[in-house]
Amino acid sequence: MKEAEVEALVERMQAGDRVALARLMTLVENRAPGLPLLMSRIYPQAGRAHVVGITGPPGAGKSTLTDRITAHRRAAGARVGIVAVDPSSPFSGGAVLGDRIRMQTHFLDPGVFIRSLASRGSHGGVARATRDVTRMLDAFGMEQVIVETVGVGQTELDVMRLADTTVVVLVPEAGDAVQVMKAGLLEIADVFVVNKADRDGAERMKSELVQMLHLRPASASHIPVLLTQAATDVGIDELLVALDEHRATLADDAERERRIRIRRESELLDILEEELRRRLERRLGNGADGLGPVLDAVRGGTLDPYSAALRILEDASTLEELVRRA
Amino acid sequence: MKEAEVEALVERMQAGDRVALARLMTLVENRAPGLPLLMSRIYPQAGRAHVVGITGPPGAGKSTLTDRITAHRRAAGARVGIVAVDPSSPFSGGAVLGDRIRMQTHFLDPGVFIRSLASRGSHGGVARATRDVTRMLDAFGMEQVIVETVGVGQTELDVMRLADTTVVVLVPEAGDAVQVMKAGLLEIADVFVVNKADRDGAERMKSELVQMLHLRPASASHIPVLLTQAATDVGIDELLVALDEHRATLADDAERERRIRIRRESELLDILEEELRRRLERRLGNGADGLGPVLDAVRGGTLDPYSAALRILEDASTLEELVRRA
Repeated sequence: MKEAEVEALVERMQAGDRVALARLMTLVENRAPGLPLLMSRIYPQAGRAHVVGITGPPGAGKSTLTDRITAHRRAAGARVGIVAVDPSSPFSGGAVLGDRIRMQTHFLDPGVFIRSLASRGSHGGVARATRDVTRMLDAFGMEQVIVETVGVGQTELDVMRLADTTVVVLVPEAGDAVQVMKAGLLEIADVFVVNKADRDGAERMKSELVQMLHLRPASASHIPVLLTQAATDVGIDELLVALDEHRATLADDAERERRIRIRRESELLDILEEELRRRLERRLGNGADGLGPVLDAVRGGTLDPYSAALRILEDASTLEELVRRA
Repeated sequence: MKEAEVEALVERMQAGDRVALARLMTLVENRAPGLPLLMSRIYPQAGRAHVVGITGPPGAGKSTLTDRITAHRRAAGARVGIVAVDPSSPFSGGAVLGDRIRMQTHFLDPGVFIRSLASRGSHGGVARATRDVTRMLDAFGMEQVIVETVGVGQTELDVMRLADTTVVVLVPEAGDAVQVMKAGLLEIADVFVVNKADRDGAERMKSELVQMLHLRPASASHIPVLLTQAATDVGIDELLVALDEHRATLADDAERERRIRIRRESELLDILEEELRRRLERRLGNGADGLGPVLDAVRGGTLDPYSAALRILEDASTLEELVRRA
């Protein structure tokens, strides 16, 4: 897509055009060339939304919770953006389609924008797409953005890093709290929810979590552990209060300021890395001038790729040529 | 670690020292600086092993199959290397510890080397570590290397790309064959195994898979679908025959030659990307000369990271400085 076309889309999006927003999101999801420029145009409008991440095992009821939070926020007049990161593995989920259908009550609401992102795509592509789509929803004026991921692999942990407030949803039968700790969820949770709390073991799971939180530094003992029954709207008001309270603590939290500075720096690194990779790929694809012989030797197996990489990195002119804009 | 120390480890490893091998693997798993040089020293000895990838859903019996293949290969006098890529998510697995304990029968066998890799770590780190560890086992003289992964997320698909022969293991109750197709497993499988075949539905799953394979190009209809009961050693001989037959077809397969050339090229790209990222990270960490003001502006939020990245990429001297060896 030409720069002028992207520019026109950004302007239309900034004027509230949902079709333009959706098209820009497709560029982002496909990691199209020119993303840094596109995102640098979006960035100034972003930064006002409260970004809530929701994660937990398949079947915990994350989509139903998202649906309920959305309904309550809408009733209070807030606009809501939803990013649903779908699993690529059929073994980890299953009910995805059903979950999406449940969300359709909001599809016709102009105050809600829902985007699904497939979690296929290597090299941190999903985490990057989620970051950029979230920022677009923020820039579009959504006061509440909900990022929902299934599972807790590395991709999901990367995704959660961009949330202001992270909600970990469990169900009574999700296994014991030790599993939660092993998955690194104890470190990332700002709010715990035990959903489907009408089932056996909900109270036991809650008290296990509360006990475990005492193993964390002092601040962690303030992390709420809530019981909900999302399907029947039980406990949602309390959850919203917890989200708002957590958000309020963010404003004057020195630790958070420190984390944000680190996050910005690692985002810069990420953008540079992705862009360098893109340029390398294009140059190698073109059989970049002066690089042909090295590449041929690697392809043919007469030069190992490690030695080739070292040779390229040592040779200033080749390196320079590789990373310059095409 | 100093270059001379690494050099000494490589020499000891090449002389058959298992402790040196394990220490080099730790460097690889931690993605230590200097990896390209280390791996370029290992590379010439590698290339003789038959690398078999084993993947499939949790509970399919992958570890038991790995154990059985290992036992049979050892009985035939071959040396075996095993790379077990463990899941980071507690929700996807669970029996990992038990599986590992089952493998302990081989721990004392000097003809077997087992390495577990945690699948934590972003940016393709696991796939890269698996690639390098596999190559080390190959260079160490293992005729058979088995790479076992739990689950079929993007990481696992990346990991499987390095196998000569990919075995997809299912169980009768793993869901229908459509799930297999959705997961992209149909494209990567060279051999299908329906394990725990004494359970209900094994024959039905086998015939579903056979039918689906007819949807693939002509060559796919040759993909065997085997029934095994790994725990009682049933069907393992047939599996070994299938592995050997697949390997034999590789030698004069023009399509494979084409894929290898592509793989070598993308490996070069991967090594370059990882090394550039490492250098960027170090330079930014040092507050690289001339870059301080840009970095401070990003950290403080007065310059968005996308614009900062573009500025750095446009500025030849900064870029040059960023990617030169420290």
